[in-house]
Amino acid sequence: MAHWKETVREKRRQQAESIPAAWRLPSIPDDFVSSTDVIDSCDILTDWEKQITQNTDASALLSKMASREMSSLEVATAFCKRAAVAHQLINCCTEMFFDRALQRARELDEHLARTGNVVGPLHGLPMSIKDGFEVEGVDTTVGWAGLIGKPAKKSGSVVRLLLSLGAVLYVKTNIPQSLMMSDSYNHVFGQSVNALNKHLISGGSSGGEGAIVGARGSIIGVGTDIGGSIRIPAALQGLYGLLPTVGRIPWEKSSMTQTYNVLPVAGPISATLENIERFMESVISSRPWETDAKALPVPWRKDLAKAPTRPMRVAFIFDDGVVKPQPPISRALRETADKFRAAGHEVIEWDTASHDEGIDLWLKAVKADGGEDCRNMCNLADEPLIQGMLVGEERDKLSITQRQELEMRKLAYRESFLAHWNATGVDALIMPVMAWVNFRPRTWVESKQLLGYSALWNLLDYSALTVPVTKVDPVLDAIDNEWLGYKVRNESDAFNHQQYNVNLVKGMPVSLQVVTGRFGEEKAISVAKVLADL
Amino acid sequence: MAHWKETVREKRRQQAESIPAAWRLPSIPDDFVSSTDVIDSCDILTDWEKQITQNTDASALLSKMASREMSSLEVATAFCKRAAVAHQLINCCTEMFFDRALQRARELDEHLARTGNVVGPLHGLPMSIKDGFEVEGVDTTVGWAGLIGKPAKKSGSVVRLLLSLGAVLYVKTNIPQSLMMSDSYNHVFGQSVNALNKHLISGGSSGGEGAIVGARGSIIGVGTDIGGSIRIPAALQGLYGLLPTVGRIPWEKSSMTQTYNVLPVAGPISATLENIERFMESVISSRPWETDAKALPVPWRKDLAKAPTRPMRVAFIFDDGVVKPQPPISRALRETADKFRAAGHEVIEWDTASHDEGIDLWLKAVKADGGEDCRNMCNLADEPLIQGMLVGEERDKLSITQRQELEMRKLAYRESFLAHWNATGVDALIMPVMAWVNFRPRTWVESKQLLGYSALWNLLDYSALTVPVTKVDPVLDAIDNEWLGYKVRNESDAFNHQQYNVNLVKGMPVSLQVVTGRFGEEKAISVAKVLADL
Repeated sequence: MAHWKETVREKRRQQAESIPAAWRLPSIPDDFVSSTDVIDSCDILTDWEKQITQNTDASALLSKMASREMSSLEVATAFCKRAAVAHQLINCCTEMFFDRALQRARELDEHLARTGNVVGPLHGLPMSIKDGFEVEGVDTTVGWAGLIGKPAKKSGSVVRLLLSLGAVLYVKTNIPQSLMMSDSYNHVFGQSVNALNKHLISGGSSGGEGAIVGARGSIIGVGTDIGGSIRIPAALQGLYGLLPTVGRIPWEKSSMTQTYNVLPVAGPISATLENIERFMESVISSRPWETDAKALPVPWRKDLAKAPTRPMRVAFIFDDGVVKPQPPISRALRETADKFRAAGHEVIEWDTASHDEGIDLWLKAVKADGGEDCRNMCNLADEPLIQGMLVGEERDKLSITQRQELEMRKLAYRESFLAHWNATGVDALIMPVMAWVNFRPRTWVESKQLLGYSALWNLLDYSALTVPVTKVDPVLDAIDNEWLGYKVRNESDAFNHQQYNVNLVKGMPVSLQVVTGRFGEEKAISVAKVLADL
Repeated sequence: MAHWKETVREKRRQQAESIPAAWRLPSIPDDFVSSTDVIDSCDILTDWEKQITQNTDASALLSKMASREMSSLEVATAFCKRAAVAHQLINCCTEMFFDRALQRARELDEHLARTGNVVGPLHGLPMSIKDGFEVEGVDTTVGWAGLIGKPAKKSGSVVRLLLSLGAVLYVKTNIPQSLMMSDSYNHVFGQSVNALNKHLISGGSSGGEGAIVGARGSIIGVGTDIGGSIRIPAALQGLYGLLPTVGRIPWEKSSMTQTYNVLPVAGPISATLENIERFMESVISSRPWETDAKALPVPWRKDLAKAPTRPMRVAFIFDDGVVKPQPPISRALRETADKFRAAGHEVIEWDTASHDEGIDLWLKAVKADGGEDCRNMCNLADEPLIQGMLVGEERDKLSITQRQELEMRKLAYRESFLAHWNATGVDALIMPVMAWVNFRPRTWVESKQLLGYSALWNLLDYSALTVPVTKVDPVLDAIDNEWLGYKVRNESDAFNHQQYNVNLVKGMPVSLQVVTGRFGEEKAISVAKVLADL
């Protein structure tokens, strides 16, 4: 058997070759910061292709393709080229299958010309997907060297669904080894970096997805989230990212009930709220429950997604008492709360006393296999495990009885949380996605970072939506005496405090999270509309 | 520690005392067959109380109570008395708490008098529930001696829900040890028998529930079903019984994902289809998903429950190729198919080739703990295990990895079954609930009976509704040469064939099952309306 490094070298060679020669940058500038600057000034994309891809309005693109004002082929070509260039700058992709995408786009154009009808509500829309989704004939390595060269025999449910809706798939995107960190690097595909600043991370586990959408190499991407994996990359690139409740977006992994007491969920990442809504409505209006044995028959409730006409009652979490948010996030929270109050909404502060217990249950759940899955993956190719990820060790392993006890504790926790939620009568929580603004690559694993702000909602199976709110301002967010004098509470808090460097992250997006309970996808969009208007 | 037989003796003494002296039959006639004959001729119930309880129209009762034409107290008194008498004849109850029920009824009457409003859509309706549902302050032994004397600290979600809707709870009903057989007896409460013929069984595991509703000691009862436990007792007493999809009726046990790859589901048993619909609509219209952390936000879709106005396409299963149904069931199927055809509906035959695999997965799932739960329960009081139940042995025990593999196999099976279902374009399946009409007590455990006709729908999480169709006719269903000459296929088939005795079961109800897919509760009711009209 070849050494895993050999296998990886060959895989990377093939990956590089999957970019047509004409789409390769003659050289990568050393001194760029934002990938979009390089893409928009390179001459691989035509001006028209730049225009197509800079546009973030999926509905406009869709209606122009439906009316044959634009062809699916030209749109697909533009996004394929932009993705190819972006990848060379920020290493966002794992698999690129541009030929297939362009062939598919041609077929869609022909279908439309022949029948006069679109294939579905996403007819012609190029969409990127996280590496974990299976595409027939393409590897699903999820970053493990041992899974190289094992192309999927059949596309998975998300891919089949997107294709049935008319989407054009052209790339899969990078993730961290094991999916259990907020920084996307692995031995097969290396390190993804932030679309807006290559010195910073794009997040994880849907980090390649955040990066490619941030670089406008994709207009809507699909990631997955078990503790923040959609919402954190969205936040880091100034995008919207939705964690739906299990069962609304069909996906096989959502039924691995024996592996996890918490299930991963698939959801969209995009630059606009309209695109998130368009995606959710398109998927759910296709009635996936009629053909998918796990999807739930909950229609898209358009009325619930409208901006509310009455004043809302919104609870804010300014600080969960475990890890104090860095100054730009605190400012974003304060400013947002002020605006909500000024607009006549009621703002209360959320009591986070019960959150510790929830996070403890979440940690026990995601570590319940004692790291066995990861060890098996490593063993496939004698590949080392990256240290510092949220992966169980032998002592974390739970027996069947312990998993059952954990399930009962989770259920009791869910019940008491819901009772508390109902008692407060809130429409939504507004809170940080995470306590930090950004890190340099490979810092996260040293962080002892808790995912307290994001992972609780996975345990509870609540909808949560990342909303970009502001940017780091070197003056407003400068370190002040309060921050300097702050007494840290624990290791995670100490790391988060020590890492804040306004010069490192200035100009980077600052995002918040809207949490709206189980099956609260429409409500989250409704509240985000209010937030966007303010 | 007292010997378990001592504990049981004391429990039975307390049980007997929970029936007021005035409601005790002076003697139990030796020669009765149907419990209703004895109840209707005894003088414990007044004529008015007999009238109230013989009426099977829950909506009429509810509207009379809502308009104060009848009081909740008089209705509750009538059902408490009838349940008490029925219990003495057919041993249907485990816990009886009549004082509490009458007190509750008084409170409901006072509330209505004071406010002019009903408490909820089931205001004043007496309802019986299976022993497994927890009622605060009452034992939940589920028939295990070791659980005697451990009253529930808190009512469970089903009980809280029913009370919030205005129901009056007065009894819990008998089940088999371990819940894993179709004949309800256990060491604590003994043997329940059929309401219509005490020489025959009432079924299981919701056997006490079937018996009490069959004896009109309850107008709507709530049972649970993991392989046929609602549908079989309903069939044996000539009642309707609905297995809903997981998540429509909230119940804690539906989330024990680590224990089972198949989940038990709560559902109603009643003499009329209208009552089943009324129950489902009342429960679901209360929007349980807003207060229950596991209920799914699928409203009651009244339109889908209406009798269809267009011809339907219905598939029949006359024989699954494993166990040939006894003659009355085959006749019921033939007659029903003929009537469907005559009414202009399309009738096709369903291909059962894939069913074996599904039943195998179901068996693996329900035995996956290797019988550990049952051993633990037995060990609590040194109580012996009843042999012949569907309980795992050491060799059936699955590891976490094996459970995960089973889950993936189940998922693949569900997917291919759904694809087949969609390809056939059927509205519903009509088929046996089980292959037999009835047995004498304690025969089922010798039967090597497969639950092939009923359990497949639990594996698939499909809605299935028992519908009474006809009665055993000693002439039409007499053993003929075809039955005599039939070559049995396997042990289960041989037992089922050998046990058929038309004299034993003459006059007993013969029921069929309408299966309508996931979240097909409304559709099942719609198809059953057609069936009832024919």
